[in-house]
Amino acid sequence: MTSAAVQHVSEARLWARHMELAQHGALSKGGVCRLALSDEEIAARKTLIAWAAALDLAVSTDAIGNLFFRMEGSEPDLDPVMTGSHIDSQPAGGKFDGAFGVLAAFEVVEAMRAAGIEPRRPVIVVAWMNEEASRFAPGMMGSEAFTATKPLETILAVTDDQGVSVAEAVQRVAAAFPQVPEIPLGFPVHAFLEAHIEQGPILEAEGKPVGVVTGIQGSRRFRVTVTGEEAHAGTEPLRKRKDALLAAIDIVDGLREAFADPDDIVKFTVGRFEIAPNAPSVVAAHAFFSVDLRHPDWPTLKRLGDMVGPIAEARKGPCGVETREIATSPSLDFPATLTTLLDEVATDLGIDHMAIYSAAGHDARQLHYVCPTAMIFVPCAGGISHNEAESSEPGDLADGARVLTEAVVRLSA
Amino acid sequence: MTSAAVQHVSEARLWARHMELAQHGALSKGGVCRLALSDEEIAARKTLIAWAAALDLAVSTDAIGNLFFRMEGSEPDLDPVMTGSHIDSQPAGGKFDGAFGVLAAFEVVEAMRAAGIEPRRPVIVVAWMNEEASRFAPGMMGSEAFTATKPLETILAVTDDQGVSVAEAVQRVAAAFPQVPEIPLGFPVHAFLEAHIEQGPILEAEGKPVGVVTGIQGSRRFRVTVTGEEAHAGTEPLRKRKDALLAAIDIVDGLREAFADPDDIVKFTVGRFEIAPNAPSVVAAHAFFSVDLRHPDWPTLKRLGDMVGPIAEARKGPCGVETREIATSPSLDFPATLTTLLDEVATDLGIDHMAIYSAAGHDARQLHYVCPTAMIFVPCAGGISHNEAESSEPGDLADGARVLTEAVVRLSA
Repeated sequence: MTSAAVQHVSEARLWARHMELAQHGALSKGGVCRLALSDEEIAARKTLIAWAAALDLAVSTDAIGNLFFRMEGSEPDLDPVMTGSHIDSQPAGGKFDGAFGVLAAFEVVEAMRAAGIEPRRPVIVVAWMNEEASRFAPGMMGSEAFTATKPLETILAVTDDQGVSVAEAVQRVAAAFPQVPEIPLGFPVHAFLEAHIEQGPILEAEGKPVGVVTGIQGSRRFRVTVTGEEAHAGTEPLRKRKDALLAAIDIVDGLREAFADPDDIVKFTVGRFEIAPNAPSVVAAHAFFSVDLRHPDWPTLKRLGDMVGPIAEARKGPCGVETREIATSPSLDFPATLTTLLDEVATDLGIDHMAIYSAAGHDARQLHYVCPTAMIFVPCAGGISHNEAESSEPGDLADGARVLTEAVVRLSA
Repeated sequence: MTSAAVQHVSEARLWARHMELAQHGALSKGGVCRLALSDEEIAARKTLIAWAAALDLAVSTDAIGNLFFRMEGSEPDLDPVMTGSHIDSQPAGGKFDGAFGVLAAFEVVEAMRAAGIEPRRPVIVVAWMNEEASRFAPGMMGSEAFTATKPLETILAVTDDQGVSVAEAVQRVAAAFPQVPEIPLGFPVHAFLEAHIEQGPILEAEGKPVGVVTGIQGSRRFRVTVTGEEAHAGTEPLRKRKDALLAAIDIVDGLREAFADPDDIVKFTVGRFEIAPNAPSVVAAHAFFSVDLRHPDWPTLKRLGDMVGPIAEARKGPCGVETREIATSPSLDFPATLTTLLDEVATDLGIDHMAIYSAAGHDARQLHYVCPTAMIFVPCAGGISHNEAESSEPGDLADGARVLTEAVVRLSA
């Protein structure tokens, strides 16, 4: 009933590759800092390319720096089955977020090669560029450019804190790999599957090694910019001040009150917060912060998000304020054709599994706009992610890779 | 009754030198960013040294990078009269804060030379290193090292955001001026006078070009460090989070409430505020902020400052917190001998003046521990300082320089 490939999925190899990839950008507490298009990420790309060479996969890239590894099919003109995730990380991220999806995809190809399976459709392993938004914001740049959900020019013009544009950074990475050909941006895909750690506590609590993801929670992201006036901390009377920090704090307090949720379903996060000139004896003239708001119910999320601007206005005090929405992602459901397939595959393999909803965003969001798309989750300890302490069990990772392998074999047959 | 020197004080030259010095680190809105020991400050030092050469002043430096310009006296072994301020600035500072005190001191020597006055005591113009604490904190490093109010080793070990130590930065500046000899740190001083813009609104409101400063408001400075836990913005339930940003905000809110003052005399400022990892989709694991607290009444300031730590503890929520006091400056009074002299000089020159209290700290604080010390204030528009818009009237600057010149002539005779 199941293919010969699954038995060639190697838990030991999959685990060893996680550890090897985590060397690139390794941090002291076991995590990684591997920002998109950085030297550390270039080193990680080299490692992937070396593995791909041993598997005789055709490597290519595109105008946004996505990285593709193609296993040819017996009917090369058919739309390929694609699977993968991303290799960039949070500034103090873990070893598994993103990396697992790419390494599980490599495991699919390893297992198919070992089993001597030649697919009818090409199978493409992908590493999407900049999912995390740690260096260039917002994230999901590779999958957004690939699916044309955002114009390439808009994405290429984004700059990092040092003023380096995405265009320059992509060029730099391309220059590091002169042997990797560039293919046109975007192409038809038969189906896309992304394996990922859950980044939440549910699978662990339920004792299930695999989750079949039914959809992704929506999110709205904002940037709030507060303008006050510099003044001397020792001399300026408080009632004359236009203190951008205090205004920003008042706005965050207002948002907290508005989004307080006894059921703890609303996810409200201010993850970035900066002031200028940021000197101890100077009243802040500028403050800037991010608002990340998520909720599984799209109408609720729409309503809550629409409150950010008015609350900022109401709480700005003597300062000026500007609220800009930089990303809007409606809640979405994956197609039943694929979720049913994943459910059947897991059942056939005797791997315990459950349906689960994704609270985090993923590149799969973008792909789902252009082709049948689904995701597989595996547990991570304590639900902890975006943290150096992020960890997963080797056996769970392997189970996830087995489900992915069998699903890709069936989809590409 | 007054010396021949005063008529040689040149309003035009003094103004032109402010404009010339402001070229070093010039910002777009008319201000300057001239951080201590930076390339911009090195360029400013070159300009001062060129002026000093034309006046035949002996240039020297010391182990902390203070810069001295010595006009020899007829009795060179007598303790010198010293006057000056600082040339480093806030990150977005003005043209006059610090610069005025150094340039007015140069005007003293220009006027004495032009009048052919040879003082009995040497007259030393000084530019103290790092008053502002913009790059290395806390500030007043040059005057603290000179007066041994803090150990040299402690100061040299401080690092900036890039990890560069004061020791390294001082070495780098010394290397840029191989012709400038290093003299031992600290030497007896007969009297120290510092001219400065008021950085407050009183002289302007009273229509007085000169203030004779009677003392300096005390200050206490703290660093509060909050430790939470990184988590994924989309998945981690709010009640499980240890959000360092929200805890820091709660602490700042607690301090604001505790220090609320209907009379607006308490000066409470959080001028520096940072979080980490500072990424939009990651719950902050770390927050750090400064607390700058000032009050003219020392017992009151002591009482308020002692509340910072307990309030931080009470408001830390699920996070950890550490409060450290990094600078304590009691309120102080300048000796009547010098304030009386300045009052007499201004009266003799027919320059309208008043007694005034300094709300801001100055290098004069440190000098007052080791020698008779006083200050002269001139108005600045709107009381605005630590801001690119900082401005003063050429005539007021010249009046301040005239009082300073006559006072130095009398003290050095």
